[in-house]
Amino acid sequence: MQKYKNMQTHLLTIGDEILIGQIVDTNSPWMSQQLNLRGMSVNGKSSVGDTRQAIIDGIGHAASNADVVIMTGGLGPTKDDITKKTLAEMFDSDMAFHSQTFEQIESYFTKIGRTAPPAMRDQATLPVKATILTNKVGSAPGMWFERAGKIFVSLPGVPFEMEYLMTAEVLPRLQQRFQQRPIVHRTLLTAGEGESNIARRIEAFEDALPAQVKLAYLPALGQVRLRLSGTWEGEVTPDAETQLTRLVEAKKAELQALIPDLIYGEEKESLEEVVGKILLAQNKKFGTAESCTGGYVAHLMTSVPGASSYFPGAVVSYSYEMKEKLLNVSPDTLQHFGAVSEETVKEMALGALDTLGLDVSVAISGIAGPGGGTPDKPVGTVWMAVSDRNRTIAVKHVFGRDRMKNIQLTGTYALNLVRKFLLGQI
Amino acid sequence: MQKYKNMQTHLLTIGDEILIGQIVDTNSPWMSQQLNLRGMSVNGKSSVGDTRQAIIDGIGHAASNADVVIMTGGLGPTKDDITKKTLAEMFDSDMAFHSQTFEQIESYFTKIGRTAPPAMRDQATLPVKATILTNKVGSAPGMWFERAGKIFVSLPGVPFEMEYLMTAEVLPRLQQRFQQRPIVHRTLLTAGEGESNIARRIEAFEDALPAQVKLAYLPALGQVRLRLSGTWEGEVTPDAETQLTRLVEAKKAELQALIPDLIYGEEKESLEEVVGKILLAQNKKFGTAESCTGGYVAHLMTSVPGASSYFPGAVVSYSYEMKEKLLNVSPDTLQHFGAVSEETVKEMALGALDTLGLDVSVAISGIAGPGGGTPDKPVGTVWMAVSDRNRTIAVKHVFGRDRMKNIQLTGTYALNLVRKFLLGQI
Repeated sequence: MQKYKNMQTHLLTIGDEILIGQIVDTNSPWMSQQLNLRGMSVNGKSSVGDTRQAIIDGIGHAASNADVVIMTGGLGPTKDDITKKTLAEMFDSDMAFHSQTFEQIESYFTKIGRTAPPAMRDQATLPVKATILTNKVGSAPGMWFERAGKIFVSLPGVPFEMEYLMTAEVLPRLQQRFQQRPIVHRTLLTAGEGESNIARRIEAFEDALPAQVKLAYLPALGQVRLRLSGTWEGEVTPDAETQLTRLVEAKKAELQALIPDLIYGEEKESLEEVVGKILLAQNKKFGTAESCTGGYVAHLMTSVPGASSYFPGAVVSYSYEMKEKLLNVSPDTLQHFGAVSEETVKEMALGALDTLGLDVSVAISGIAGPGGGTPDKPVGTVWMAVSDRNRTIAVKHVFGRDRMKNIQLTGTYALNLVRKFLLGQI
Repeated sequence: MQKYKNMQTHLLTIGDEILIGQIVDTNSPWMSQQLNLRGMSVNGKSSVGDTRQAIIDGIGHAASNADVVIMTGGLGPTKDDITKKTLAEMFDSDMAFHSQTFEQIESYFTKIGRTAPPAMRDQATLPVKATILTNKVGSAPGMWFERAGKIFVSLPGVPFEMEYLMTAEVLPRLQQRFQQRPIVHRTLLTAGEGESNIARRIEAFEDALPAQVKLAYLPALGQVRLRLSGTWEGEVTPDAETQLTRLVEAKKAELQALIPDLIYGEEKESLEEVVGKILLAQNKKFGTAESCTGGYVAHLMTSVPGASSYFPGAVVSYSYEMKEKLLNVSPDTLQHFGAVSEETVKEMALGALDTLGLDVSVAISGIAGPGGGTPDKPVGTVWMAVSDRNRTIAVKHVFGRDRMKNIQLTGTYALNLVRKFLLGQI
């Protein structure tokens, strides 16, 4: 029987720019997620500055609790290569010119239409004891050292270079080295309901989950991702992965059946992509008439490549006058019910159909804040309406007091309303 | 003479959610910046999980190189209070009910219209050896311990609670304890030019800066913040701060005079706030006609509270038809020059003035990508025009291949174009 070990990783970032707070470290969360998805754990993270002693202390501390230390940063040509030199020193390694790396760097520069500057010879001078990880998307290669059964990997800090090297070189090697138990993930995407309300609706399902399947709630503004993770716990037979996949898929189907009204997609789709796909499939033109969101929903929709096939345009009508002139809202309606009202958003949605030549529209009017609230209509009150001319459905939400959050939450709720309308779920 | 010490801080985050990559740590960069602004340094950061041993090891490691350890996270009522209990154990402290904290929590819940749940009694049970830092914006108080000349601070991980406690309690105490040399910062905000081009224009200025004044480049997409930081280096006389302020202000004025065309504001203003202030001061109505940015510029403008006084609306015209119908662009122009052309954006800008009833408009048409590029007009090509009817000025930019970056860069460049137009700089 094979031995499966729960591999522990420490992530170490090297560079003063992290310590002075100049950049937010998005590398570590990405690496953690990728390792976790493959059944490997991160049990510590740390950051040190660009000095020899800080790097030596940092690596020593990192290795004290982990099997693998993954370092990022400190490899650029302008930084005196302090990381590389310190690693060579720590691993008692000479440095030598690595012609294969230099050729790789030269071909990379050729590809982006430039000539490799002289400093690149230094980039290709590397510790001879390291296994070199070829960087096809930048100039600094990765390095892989081993000592006393532990692995030390050094990667550049530029996010897409780090991501390339992790995906192409580091993760496959780690998976090969530390045979992990089969692990299968499935993610369902929900919108329009909070974590605790979802938890209440699926409590019995969650309680009845077998021990080898875990459910994680991954919340964002107005959305919660539900991730089912199955880990094979018995002897690893040839069909273990197939069996595990079948189990996780079955649990996913159960979960879907419990909250079909909340689920808008799977895995990595965005709500705006899902709405775009439905519009394409139904061959419908969609657009927005926005007051308090000020164009944010149009921006979301048009952030998807190819949106021009189903999104001809939008109107941002911040003033009464624009609501009347561009969306044909009646002055009486505005006068009588106010701009933030069921009546006004319905007229805005109908007006947008005509003005923009749409099959389906969504209209939004609300009080984003911080000013403008009244006892009747406090800050955070938002009316939205979806219409295809035959049917016009309006709903009201009361969000919070933060202007940007109100705008973003409204965007999510409005797109989810459109999705349900298109699918005939409302 | 007083003794000035370069205080070293270690930032320690506690919580599994950081290790599994579920959240990006924005607390640490914020804390680093705030400490740096006051002349205090961060020489290390680390993250550990929610277990007693990990916390003990983490604090031990943190304290080995630092005078002050600031911990965040692990204080919520649902987490078994493992951090609090571990701290009590490490500092040989009993726990006791702290009635002042409980009253604070009760009054906080009253303010948000709820009753404090029973678990809050645990939140108010605290190590007796800690100085309690009152949290006026949440339920978990901060704790301040001292041992062997070192300071250990524990704060909640919720960003706005952490920021409140740092600002109101921690930073003032640290400043009092570690008398820092006077330090003065001034920041100038630039748009529309890259870091290296700015560096070339101000090279002589930078080389001639006195030793006690440093210049930092803080780049973001399409913008660079230039921060001058002066540190008093001589004996700290009563007028040291005044003298230092005078020196930094003089350098700021020199820098302003070198690149007046690039500077849009100072300190923490955003470009959209600056444009809004100019519009208010000039009593002008402004709006946008957007194709490739799809409402993003309107969204930026309306993210500023009070934008309704100068921003009546916008048109997103993704299709040819909408450009013709809503912005009165001539079909001949579209046919002859294409949607991404000087002629089209000029007509769009003029059309927007009429349609939206504006004094000033900006129009944008480009190829955001990834598709739609041609040899003549590659992905990233963007035309924009600003107009007040008397003058219409169009410019072309060629950005990169990433759709979202192209949209965001276009937003920055378009708002900067409007700013210069309003100020008569173009």
